[in-house]
Parts: sequence; C-alpha cells; structure tokens
Amino acid sequence: MSLNLQTHTEHFTNPLYLESGRILEPYDIIYETYGELNEDKSNVVVVCHALTGSHHVAGTYEGETKAGWWDGFIGSKKAIDTDKYFVICSNVIGSCFGSTGPMSPQHPHQEPYRYKFPVVSIKDMVKAQRILFDRLNIHRVHAIVGGSMGGMQALQFAIHYPNFANKIIAMATTHATQPWAIAFNKVAQEAILKDPEFKQGYYDPEILKEQGLSGMAVGRMAGHISFLSHESMREKFGREYKLTDGLYELFGKFQVESYLEYNGYNFTKWFDPLAYLYITKAINIYDLSRGFDSLKEALKRITAEIHLISFKNDLLFKNFEMKEIADELSVLNYKKHSYFDVESDYGHDAFLVELDKFEDYVKETLL
Amino acid sequence: MSLNLQTHTEHFTNPLYLESGRILEPYDIIYETYGELNEDKSNVVVVCHALTGSHHVAGTYEGETKAGWWDGFIGSKKAIDTDKYFVICSNVIGSCFGSTGPMSPQHPHQEPYRYKFPVVSIKDMVKAQRILFDRLNIHRVHAIVGGSMGGMQALQFAIHYPNFANKIIAMATTHATQPWAIAFNKVAQEAILKDPEFKQGYYDPEILKEQGLSGMAVGRMAGHISFLSHESMREKFGREYKLTDGLYELFGKFQVESYLEYNGYNFTKWFDPLAYLYITKAINIYDLSRGFDSLKEALKRITAEIHLISFKNDLLFKNFEMKEIADELSVLNYKKHSYFDVESDYGHDAFLVELDKFEDYVKETLL
Repeated sequence: MSLNLQTHTEHFTNPLYLESGRILEPYDIIYETYGELNEDKSNVVVVCHALTGSHHVAGTYEGETKAGWWDGFIGSKKAIDTDKYFVICSNVIGSCFGSTGPMSPQHPHQEPYRYKFPVVSIKDMVKAQRILFDRLNIHRVHAIVGGSMGGMQALQFAIHYPNFANKIIAMATTHATQPWAIAFNKVAQEAILKDPEFKQGYYDPEILKEQGLSGMAVGRMAGHISFLSHESMREKFGREYKLTDGLYELFGKFQVESYLEYNGYNFTKWFDPLAYLYITKAINIYDLSRGFDSLKEALKRITAEIHLISFKNDLLFKNFEMKEIADELSVLNYKKHSYFDVESDYGHDAFLVELDKFEDYVKETLL
Repeated sequence: MSLNLQTHTEHFTNPLYLESGRILEPYDIIYETYGELNEDKSNVVVVCHALTGSHHVAGTYEGETKAGWWDGFIGSKKAIDTDKYFVICSNVIGSCFGSTGPMSPQHPHQEPYRYKFPVVSIKDMVKAQRILFDRLNIHRVHAIVGGSMGGMQALQFAIHYPNFANKIIAMATTHATQPWAIAFNKVAQEAILKDPEFKQGYYDPEILKEQGLSGMAVGRMAGHISFLSHESMREKFGREYKLTDGLYELFGKFQVESYLEYNGYNFTKWFDPLAYLYITKAINIYDLSRGFDSLKEALKRITAEIHLISFKNDLLFKNFEMKEIADELSVLNYKKHSYFDVESDYGHDAFLVELDKFEDYVKETLL
C-alpha cells in the first residue's frame, strides 16, 4: 500500500494561552499524515518529534533523496504500520519548519518576532497539538509515540490530557530535564549568542543559510557528542586520521573531527538559531511535576497505558530517569505500564538508529 | 615541617628534537619543588600536570588565597608526603605558565610564535622534562605520578625512559586518546578558532585577559561537562533555578548554567587560547603504541612498577581504557603492576576532588 503522505497547514486565529501567561496569536501548525483514517477514527497514532526534528517523519518528498527522520519505523508493515494506522506528526510551535516560531511574522506588522517570541514549554507544544486535533475532529487517539523531546510531549499528553490517548509510548526521555542535558544546551546557546553574525537575533536568515553560523555549528558539535557514546564513537571512528592530513599539523584532523565539522556546519543550513534557543529552553524547563506537589502527584492523573523505553548507554537522558517514572508508577500500583531498558551501546541516538532492538516491542504495544 | 616551596626556571639553548621532526630552540622550563632532596637523591617524586594545570601543585603563594591544584594531595603527612619526598612538577612545553609555548618570543626576533610554534606531543613534553632533570643532576627518580594528561606523561615516561623511575602511578587517563575525548576538544578548538577576537592567533593577550574570549569560554563549558558526570551534576545542581530569574525568561538561568558561565568566562582570564589549541592537539595525538606494532609491544619496554587508577564514572577517559593497559600487562605476565578502579560517581574530576578514595593506595604504593 502507498504511504499516502500528505502535508497540510492549519491556521489558528484564537489566542493560544501559554504556560508563561503570555499569548501566541495567531499561529500556524504544519503537519503530515500517513495512511488512512478509518471510519470510526480509532486508528490514529500521533508521533511527536525531537529538538531538531520536523513533521516530516516518513517517506521521501518528490525530487529529494532523504527520507523522513523515522522512515525505518513508520510505513507499510513497519513498527508503526501505515496500512493499519493513520499517523499524524506536527511541527512543534517554536520550531522552524512551518509552524509558528521566533522567525515567523508577528501580527500585525509582519516583522519576525525574534526575541519578542514568547518562551514556549513542552506543555504549550502539546496544547497546540491538542487544538490542532480538535480542528481535525480527532478527539481521542489510539497512541502517542515519541523519543527524546518527542517522549516529553507524549508524557505531557498523558498527564494533561489523560483521556486523549489509549496508549503512550515514550522513549529516550525523562520526567524532568537534568543538569547534564541542560549543560549541553548551554554550550550551544552560548556559542550561538556570542557569534557576531547572530546579531542579537537580528540576523538575515538567508545570509546565515549560505555562510553558516559557526556558533550554531559549535553547539551542534557538542550536541552530537551528547547523542552518541564513548563506545559508539570508538566503534564508528576509532583513531582514524584523515589521510591527507599530517599527524603533526595543528589543524590535521581525526575522522571524528571531520564528522563533527561536517555535521555541525551542515546543520546551520537547515535549522534556525532562534528556534534552537527557544526549543532548548523548552527542553530545559520541562518538568512533569511542575504544578504538582511531586512527580508522583503528576503521574496520578494518568489513565492511559504507559510504555517506557530507555537505552542503556543513553548519556543525554540516562536510563534511570525513565526507570524513576516506572518506579513511581509501581509505587502508585498503576498496572497499565511497562518499562523496557534496551541493551545498546549506541547512546541517545539509538532511538533513531537501532530500531530493530525495540520495533517488535512497539508493534506489540500498539496492538 | 614547612612545604619548602621553591619556583625556578631553567633555560636551554640546545635544540629540543621533537617527534614531528621539528626543533624547539631555545626553550625555558619553569618548575616547582617541595620538600628536601635527600643525600643520595633517592626521594624524588615527579608530578605531571593536566591540560590546564601548571607547575604550581601545592602550597599557596604569598598574597594569594588559592592553593596549588593538588594541594590536598601533596604536603606534610599527605598522600605524597613532602616530609619524606622531594616533589618536582614542571610546566609542560606548549603551556602558558612560564615554560616555552606558542605565545613565547621566538628566537631571534622575539615576536610570539603563535601558529609558528611546532606541534608538541606528550612524548615531547616528557623528553623536555627528562632534559630538565639531567640539568638538575637527577638521573633516576622514585616515582612519577599524574592524572589525566599527567597520567599520559607518566605512562610515556615508563615506555620511553624505562630506567628512569622506580614507580609509575597513572590515574584517570588512557593509553591512547579516544574519539569521545577528541570530540570534546574539537568543540573547544572550533569555538576558539571561530571567535573573531582570536584573530587567527594574532590576538593581544592583555586585551583578551580583560574582556575574555567567549569562544574559549564556550569550549571550557564543554570541557566542564566532560570533567563531571550526569550523577555529580544532578547532586551538585539539581534543577535549581537562579532566584532572580523567571522560569519563562528566555535568558533565565538554572544553577548549572550559571556555574558553566562563571567557570567558562573566568577561565579566559588565566589561560591562553593558543596554548589550549596546542595542548589539546598533544592530547589528541597521544597514543602509547605509536612507533610500535601494538600497545603490547610498547608496554614490553616497561621495567618500572606500574600502578593504574581509574574512576568508575569517568566519562572523559573511561575506566576500561585503564583496564585495557592492565589486561595487556597481565597477558605479558608482567608482575609489577596493579590496577585500582575507584568507586566514584564524580566523573573525571574525581582525581582532583575525591582524594580520600585513593590517597591511601597512593601512599602505600609509594613505600
């Protein structure tokens, strides 16, 4: 069967009341769907994306070669089977792929918001999605699935819209962002802010795309470290040296250095620095227990099945952070939960790369 | 007894032949001593410093409040007891505390070398120290002790000057720098190079010291992440927020962010960016097996006692890297070695901080 990839944008004129007390108004949400919605609308699976992800999860656009970011996971006969499920993924507010973010035109003067954009939280991202689904006349979904920041959204859905999903599958994430992850974000934010081409947010995005923002490249390099692990880097790069470079040249490069440089600078061509600042801020302030006396009190609101997947060598969100959620649920005697710690040396990126290690688990969980 | 702290500089006019084939000539080495040299010169303990360390290991200079970097470890009745041992630590070549480095005047025109400074290796650093000891009429020492890059030097001594020391104590280090550590160095190097105030190495050091080099601050922030661990950061900072900052302010700060900012920018006041580039390069190219068919072949040269200390949660140099050395020594049936994996959640910095966990081990080893 065909993937039936469709991309749409919805425009909202009602104010979005944010956690901060501020308002976003108006706003757009771009989203993509795969598969077919069944008659009783009981086959919807929501996918939530990570920091630099987008609504483009699966399939390949005409004329392009790069598939969506979870293409191996979503499609006909895949873990999230589009022959069976109607999959929706929307770009979070604050991002830069079509939903309203800091470089979107501000009403009414149509100049980009830049720093005037309000801080959005994971809870706000989820609220905006909930409003999108209302617009689409989808009032309950079969499952919400996400990794990393996508997992944060899935868990936030479970707590704030307890009757919205039957099943929640959250992987490679946490219940509250810990200082280790905040520290990596800090390196990136500082590198962006201190790049003179950033111009306090008054950069020209077209010029930046051409020449790259080295501050964001540096930040992304730090990010790549946090996505991998000591072991996966050793496996992938070893101490291989670029053949053209002399070992005693100050700027001679190991393969791992070339890798970081390439990916760091390439990133600046497809991601916006202000969106990076805003989304890392959303990740930093993410804490499921905010507004409750404790994590346990927050988790008490859950009525959906909760399935937690962690990765043994995830250095960004350590496996014990997921375990802490599972443990609290056990203490609460909440039966409808499972916890799966995946054996992996790959690091945080395992949820994007080592699909074979958890796709069966997800497939069964969705049944 | 008094610490008997003494600081001296030796000037060398003979060429130092470097691993790269290049020559350093002339050069200075600054060093510090503690305790008293005994009559038969059998009580010398050499301490080797890490990336941003210096010859100032112990004691406090007149008019200052900050003690040397291993002051808790070295002194009267301490792990390295200066009542008993004559301790020497010299600043490595390539550094910026008095030994010749990239900002030293180049002979004969006396302009700073900057990029004309040759790449030096850990082996070169050790060779220069060996020449210093010759000058001091010290031809054999009781022990060589070091952590991190200091441990690299200790091991390099063991292989290249096998008859020079009775005992080698290397901690929180490796036999060859792995891509994870190289990646952290890369982030720092790139951040420095792309800072416009760096001016391709033609910065004015006095101006930099005043205003700080934000690229080096960013790099140091990344460094601090690698020195700590997820657990130690969680213990130290939790999710504490700066009281004066609002949670929804884009630039509101978590404590961990303030910590990184303070230490990052403070670092730019006391360390030189070119020295940072050169020393991280030396660390990156460090590989005990270079020039040998394998690590095993290199280790075959050792005749001293070798004592290896790793830290369970060291993320920069993983404990198994030290274990790999110990395992090779066992395969070689080399009896004079020990390996101690210290229980610690602290991360790499444990060798500077959690002294109580290994000071007895070092004390006994030195006997």
